[in-house]
Amino acid sequence: MKPTHIEHIGIAVKDLESAIAFYEKTYGFECYKIEEVADQKVRTAFFMVGQTKIELLESTSPEGPIAKFIEKKGEGIHHLAFAVQGIEEQLAHVESAGVTLIDKAPRKGAEGLDIAFLHPKSTFGVLTELCEKK
Amino acid sequence: MKPTHIEHIGIAVKDLESAIAFYEKTYGFECYKIEEVADQKVRTAFFMVGQTKIELLESTSPEGPIAKFIEKKGEGIHHLAFAVQGIEEQLAHVESAGVTLIDKAPRKGAEGLDIAFLHPKSTFGVLTELCEKK
Repeated sequence: MKPTHIEHIGIAVKDLESAIAFYEKTYGFECYKIEEVADQKVRTAFFMVGQTKIELLESTSPEGPIAKFIEKKGEGIHHLAFAVQGIEEQLAHVESAGVTLIDKAPRKGAEGLDIAFLHPKSTFGVLTELCEKK
Repeated sequence: MKPTHIEHIGIAVKDLESAIAFYEKTYGFECYKIEEVADQKVRTAFFMVGQTKIELLESTSPEGPIAKFIEKKGEGIHHLAFAVQGIEEQLAHVESAGVTLIDKAPRKGAEGLDIAFLHPKSTFGVLTELCEKK
């Protein structure tokens, strides 16, 4: 079954509070949650825009993936996440289609979702996440 | 009024046909249109994912913005587009909130939408587009 919608768009920022203020003031979006995901060394802030979330990501460590991303490419869009049903089967399917998996099996991400990342070298440069709310 | 949803996500690719085949095979999405936007020196391909489009962008010129983007950053997510109502008022509002406008007034984009881009230096690194279907 194909992904149902874009679950979220992850955006790397240097300072979470400034970026939250920007999204609230500029667009009128409301930040409904701030969550730390220790596993990924990030603090995240969420906004709903239609059926998709904007997920702002601030690194909690200079060694974290978001800090490395900003060092290399600057602040900006970091990844794209598709909502799927049956994430294990979806991972097996995309791998059989030639995609390299970063996560061979789902793990827990922000908001309690089961998540897995696909390697951007195998997805035309787009760091892609599959996620499922179980 | 705040943006209603994410209208599309623009993804820069080197070869449109290969990227279309990837999105179709990997995720089961269906490309419903290919359109050339001469003004922006791109050929675009569209997929619906829930209420949001994925817009693949291939440059039609080595001097085009997509060719320059790929040269600098590689293939990947290029911009984020919000669907708005009353794009002229929205542009005035975001400018008053401190955003630098690339397009001072809306112009015609792909799919007949009225569009305007916001400068990423004023939006935490995210090349952002506002668009309205009139």
